[in-house]
Amino acid sequence: MIQAAICTIGDEILIGQIVDTNSSHIARMLNSIGVKVARMCSVSDDNSDIKSSIDALLKEFDIVIVTGGLGPTKDDITKKALGELFGSRGYYHHEGQWEIVKKVLTSRGIELFDTNYAQADIPEGAEVIVNRLGTAPCMVFRFHETAYRHSPVLYSAPGVPFEALGLLPDIQKDICSHFNLRSIYHKTIVTFGIPESTLAKKIELWEENLPEDIHLAYLPNSITGVRLRLSIYGVDAEEGKRRIDEEFSKVLPILGEAVYGEGEDTLQDVIVRKLIAGGNTLSVAESCTGGRIASLFTQIRGVSKCFMGSVTSYDNSVKRSILGVPEEILETKGAVSSECAEAMATGVLKALDTDYGLATTGIAGPDGGTPEKPAGTVWVAVARKERDGHITVSSQMFRFSSNRSVNIDRFSSSALNMLRINL
Amino acid sequence: MIQAAICTIGDEILIGQIVDTNSSHIARMLNSIGVKVARMCSVSDDNSDIKSSIDALLKEFDIVIVTGGLGPTKDDITKKALGELFGSRGYYHHEGQWEIVKKVLTSRGIELFDTNYAQADIPEGAEVIVNRLGTAPCMVFRFHETAYRHSPVLYSAPGVPFEALGLLPDIQKDICSHFNLRSIYHKTIVTFGIPESTLAKKIELWEENLPEDIHLAYLPNSITGVRLRLSIYGVDAEEGKRRIDEEFSKVLPILGEAVYGEGEDTLQDVIVRKLIAGGNTLSVAESCTGGRIASLFTQIRGVSKCFMGSVTSYDNSVKRSILGVPEEILETKGAVSSECAEAMATGVLKALDTDYGLATTGIAGPDGGTPEKPAGTVWVAVARKERDGHITVSSQMFRFSSNRSVNIDRFSSSALNMLRINL
Repeated sequence: MIQAAICTIGDEILIGQIVDTNSSHIARMLNSIGVKVARMCSVSDDNSDIKSSIDALLKEFDIVIVTGGLGPTKDDITKKALGELFGSRGYYHHEGQWEIVKKVLTSRGIELFDTNYAQADIPEGAEVIVNRLGTAPCMVFRFHETAYRHSPVLYSAPGVPFEALGLLPDIQKDICSHFNLRSIYHKTIVTFGIPESTLAKKIELWEENLPEDIHLAYLPNSITGVRLRLSIYGVDAEEGKRRIDEEFSKVLPILGEAVYGEGEDTLQDVIVRKLIAGGNTLSVAESCTGGRIASLFTQIRGVSKCFMGSVTSYDNSVKRSILGVPEEILETKGAVSSECAEAMATGVLKALDTDYGLATTGIAGPDGGTPEKPAGTVWVAVARKERDGHITVSSQMFRFSSNRSVNIDRFSSSALNMLRINL
Repeated sequence: MIQAAICTIGDEILIGQIVDTNSSHIARMLNSIGVKVARMCSVSDDNSDIKSSIDALLKEFDIVIVTGGLGPTKDDITKKALGELFGSRGYYHHEGQWEIVKKVLTSRGIELFDTNYAQADIPEGAEVIVNRLGTAPCMVFRFHETAYRHSPVLYSAPGVPFEALGLLPDIQKDICSHFNLRSIYHKTIVTFGIPESTLAKKIELWEENLPEDIHLAYLPNSITGVRLRLSIYGVDAEEGKRRIDEEFSKVLPILGEAVYGEGEDTLQDVIVRKLIAGGNTLSVAESCTGGRIASLFTQIRGVSKCFMGSVTSYDNSVKRSILGVPEEILETKGAVSSECAEAMATGVLKALDTDYGLATTGIAGPDGGTPEKPAGTVWVAVARKERDGHITVSSQMFRFSSNRSVNIDRFSSSALNMLRINL
């Protein structure tokens, strides 16, 4: 089967100033067309480093996709290095990309410099996949047998994430037309609320009885829960789907309510689909999660059909004034209590006039805990307006012991999961 | 100088289901103690892959730090592979880690299985750095000259980000005591609002005149702006600081207001420091940014001293009811207008009774744009309560042309930057 390597170039990655998100997007694309990603690596903005590393990858793999190092600044030297590796004698100017460079920069009100003109210069012999979202094009280097016995193909894309992302469909098309790909079929189900080791134990027998040619992968994630992914190679989509659905159908009863979706589904995706299907609206009141839940919802395109808004009542005065939490509750029970969470959920439902209200109040830490309510404690409440107009509300406590930002993520996903189950 | 490689293990990374954030944290740690990270890579959960890749890295580098593949599930096989590579004949049980495994799992109410017991089993000859936050320990393999001429050290840490992060200080201590490190000094200044190519042109002369032994790196980031990082090796901190400050002092006047901080500073960090120093409070009204700005603030420890809360007025009804935006503005000017942004900023300042109010209203896209107000358009307003109690408000329009999530990030950072300049 066709094997690929993904290589990011740039000191900013090696010194840890930037997290590489491109490689995972590229890997998912390759994976979806049955190309196995066998290696990922990062090399520095150094001409000889780039050449030796890419040369090593080209010797071993059929496809090498490089991102980064194509910016206009002096420390971006990928193009020169790859041109030398390819044996280009010089550069040609790509008018199509140059037109876009001018359009992009002027639309952003950015002055044009010769460094920008040079961004449309391409090493001789390399092909171009035009980048419509930015200045640096994607270059395609098709190596001949004389260079590497198996004639690998090298793609060089810009490192700016949304530009790299925008080029993936064209790169995918080029790969499919260049290689004769073996088919692959995956399916992933997503679960929430069962820790990885408990889950593994629960489905141990099922896992042991999986057919030889079906591979299971655990994809644990503290925010979205554990994903279970079955893969089968070398079958057509129809048979793959049939055989994998057959295996999943055996495990679903074991997992029950913990399974909330498929593929790339997130808790908020599933909630939004349910709300829209039921013609219901949602509002959120956040204390310790501080806007995190609202921002998870508003990242979803078209969410305005069901998500009306939220109140971040970080200070208690806001819990009283906007959400109408009784002073007495704050004094006697405290802000981190089932009573306060329920008053917040009811309060935001009323204030924003929605069918559902979701509320969180807790201590993200590291400061502010007590022995009874240590940092990592959160109360979540879900309020619901019934047909007859009266409001029912329920609440639940969760406790975690991580750092502040992980706690905020876990508080948020626990709240989303409680809402999902209550819908 | 001591060179290191960082290797992540796990199919979940190679198939793109998980983004590797550990490597950048590890790289920053190594960098801070003068260890050059020369390579990063990811390999699959395959015994021979792991052994051959790690063997290749050990041949080339002094330090290899591996993360991942230490979970309790069947597809986590790093420990076995590294033990074989190290030549361990068997395993010993590490009581210290086992105590923590029990504590961690029971505190989370998780049932214990033999797979968990095995997590405290260590290949013979390997040392342990105890992991207090999770079940899998960090293992230290000190290879003898007989194995690799330069006696490299291999660290194997769990892949769970906050556990890996928690182990870094101890790993750093071990590296410093094992190796005789050459010193390094860096300083980074952070800018916002000048595109990378324009910035490069602005400081071209300064860059050309930098001393040979001082290295400049551009660290562009669409959210936090372009960072400029100067590094100098082999000098003591005092001299390094003196010489780098001297170079920065020449460029600061050229960059002016665009420079907003140093090191890891974010726009929200700087804003929070200014607000607390001035004894002022802030509230936020978000439409298109949908909670993103509030969640950026609430990730900051101790922000409750100045951040009172926010209203996500995603639906116009919330702009009217909670923020008191006049119906007439929404009808005649529309929700995406300077008038609406200013009414939102003033409204949230009044509703949450704060000194400053920040508001955003725009179209994140991809849907919902018009020729006059295309997707990517945002209005930002900053309201301020003067000493005499009356409120002044100003607004500004920004336009971007990215995808939804990038637009939301850019809207947010543009709003934060406008607030920063207005403080």
